Amino acid sequence: MQESFDIKTSEGSYPVVITHGIIQEISSRHHDVVYLIDSNLIKYTSLFASRCVWVDATEENKSLDRLSDVIVQFRGLGANRGSHIVAIGGGIVQDIATFCASIYMRGLGWTYVPSTMLSMADSCVGGKSSVNVAGYKNLVGNIYPPSEVLIDVELLATLPAEHVIGGLFEAVKICYAHSATAVLAFLDLSPSPTMEVLQLERVIHHALLCKKWFIETDEFDKSERLLLNFGHTFGHALEAGTNFKIPHGIAIGVGMLVAVRFSSQQKTLTDAGALRVKQLSDYVRSTILVNRDAIPCLSEPVHLHLVMEKFENDKKHTSSHYRIVVPDEGGTLELASVTKNADSRKDLLGAFSAALADLSCFSVI
Amino acid sequence: MQESFDIKTSEGSYPVVITHGIIQEISSRHHDVVYLIDSNLIKYTSLFASRCVWVDATEENKSLDRLSDVIVQFRGLGANRGSHIVAIGGGIVQDIATFCASIYMRGLGWTYVPSTMLSMADSCVGGKSSVNVAGYKNLVGNIYPPSEVLIDVELLATLPAEHVIGGLFEAVKICYAHSATAVLAFLDLSPSPTMEVLQLERVIHHALLCKKWFIETDEFDKSERLLLNFGHTFGHALEAGTNFKIPHGIAIGVGMLVAVRFSSQQKTLTDAGALRVKQLSDYVRSTILVNRDAIPCLSEPVHLHLVMEKFENDKKHTSSHYRIVVPDEGGTLELASVTKNADSRKDLLGAFSAALADLSCFSVI
Repeated sequence: MQESFDIKTSEGSYPVVITHGIIQEISSRHHDVVYLIDSNLIKYTSLFASRCVWVDATEENKSLDRLSDVIVQFRGLGANRGSHIVAIGGGIVQDIATFCASIYMRGLGWTYVPSTMLSMADSCVGGKSSVNVAGYKNLVGNIYPPSEVLIDVELLATLPAEHVIGGLFEAVKICYAHSATAVLAFLDLSPSPTMEVLQLERVIHHALLCKKWFIETDEFDKSERLLLNFGHTFGHALEAGTNFKIPHGIAIGVGMLVAVRFSSQQKTLTDAGALRVKQLSDYVRSTILVNRDAIPCLSEPVHLHLVMEKFENDKKHTSSHYRIVVPDEGGTLELASVTKNADSRKDLLGAFSAALADLSCFSVI
Repeated sequence: MQESFDIKTSEGSYPVVITHGIIQEISSRHHDVVYLIDSNLIKYTSLFASRCVWVDATEENKSLDRLSDVIVQFRGLGANRGSHIVAIGGGIVQDIATFCASIYMRGLGWTYVPSTMLSMADSCVGGKSSVNVAGYKNLVGNIYPPSEVLIDVELLATLPAEHVIGGLFEAVKICYAHSATAVLAFLDLSPSPTMEVLQLERVIHHALLCKKWFIETDEFDKSERLLLNFGHTFGHALEAGTNFKIPHGIAIGVGMLVAVRFSSQQKTLTDAGALRVKQLSDYVRSTILVNRDAIPCLSEPVHLHLVMEKFENDKKHTSSHYRIVVPDEGGTLELASVTKNADSRKDLLGAFSAALADLSCFSVI
């Protein structure tokens, strides 16, 4: 399979190509290239000659202070205005590459080759970066799309199932946010961490076409694209409240279950709405339960008061309201403002508690 | 006098307002403001309440590593997605503000109030930032125009004449690059560091209208705008070769004299061309000589071999050619590629030497 489509932006468009075997021939695609590569991919060293900056994909390396090191290495490798950056890695490498490519000599062209399920099925399109500053996560960032995105699912071969499942949860979230038909088409592909390459490519292709709609409709993240935060405010709280023992993708999956629970507590869903949220919840829950042996974080204790504390501090809330994405009566996502008070705090805690109890695998404290 | 005009960019346009008294009422213009202000302007402290980040306008503070401090201070002052940055200062403050405003929570709106002649007459429009990285000057940067530029010439009152002269040299450069008529209109205003406020506003207005043409014609600095490097490759070499004892604006003035000298050595100018370059050279030379007591750097020794070494290392050159902006036969600027060899090196050294000898005020070694 080779599929490709374009993402349109206000400054032109860039192609997204989904195929396999790209990694083997990438070094022949561009002249005057500097590579920025996740050091987990060190086994591919022989493919990239010597102009290569290796980075450990850690939150520390994704901070503004550390980016100088990458810039200085670009300079040391002779990168100039005519050079092209090829970045190969997951979301953290993408953040570093987006930011550094955008500022180096006021901007170089760059190619992104995502290497994780999460980056292939979601973050690789959209062009946003998020960078930490002095302990504040994602406090700065920008939008600087690559000139092409090349997706080679062979890079997934060595990833643990937990990571692939996390990517599937981001993918189902995008499809759910898009439309009732998009999520059905996604579920029809029976996405699982053990599916074969061709099926994996179909799943990625479908999720990216849904995401394309959001990006092209709302390039600068002002309206429709905010719905893609579905599961994120709850999920981030779970991640941060467990000191990042629960990885991002799994936390987003559970975060959607919490959002659905909260919504069901607050309003009476229509039959169609109830069916939509049930299809989604069933997929997330069964994917976790079927693969529980492959998800080590399920044995982590979850301290609900810590999770709620992180939820309270989310920067998307205003001083008087929580801002969360939840299904409305018909199951369609909406950005809701919930007044901060003792009642809403109790309901939110109840939703966290019920969603985790449903999974009966985290030890909730 | 109050003049205003718009600068058009690919993402909208922003107004430039030239008037006086703005500084007194700036705090009433925006809601939810965080100020970023040159610490030289500390006497205005009482105008800006408490939400203020003060910066020393040094090259060290304009480096990527130091920008985290500014970002963290924005966060400490409660800046969020709805906040507006008001930056007041010269080119260094503008660089820091452009960069930080563009990345803070992926971009805040900002107002720029230039406080030096150089920033008022030149850099305040265009939207470019330049930031140092680990000793590499201006290695990174971006383009992120403010939402408005407010020029209050009263801020110039306390600046030494040397700085105003430097600004006038950047202004005459822009006018020269624009057209033969633009430079005549500039000279008709008899621009000098001792002119009165109204005349100063006219000079700034005229230079900015010329610069507007360059920015709108070539927003991303690919062709016409490169001509604004006139005087800069030679001037940067003088600055760096004297360890920055010669300030930027004066160095650009002398740099234009060197470029004109080099051009006159290499080709026979038409009568009109000779007249154009003579008018420019006379203005720069007489401004320096009339105000020599107000320009302390004129007593600095200039080691020509150090200057030539810096010239050689300019990043705009290619491996085989020097890239310089010089007048052609008719006096119009062009971007010239000069083959690197012993002859061209001798000619370039000769041009530096002759231009400095003409001024008979630097002690050339």
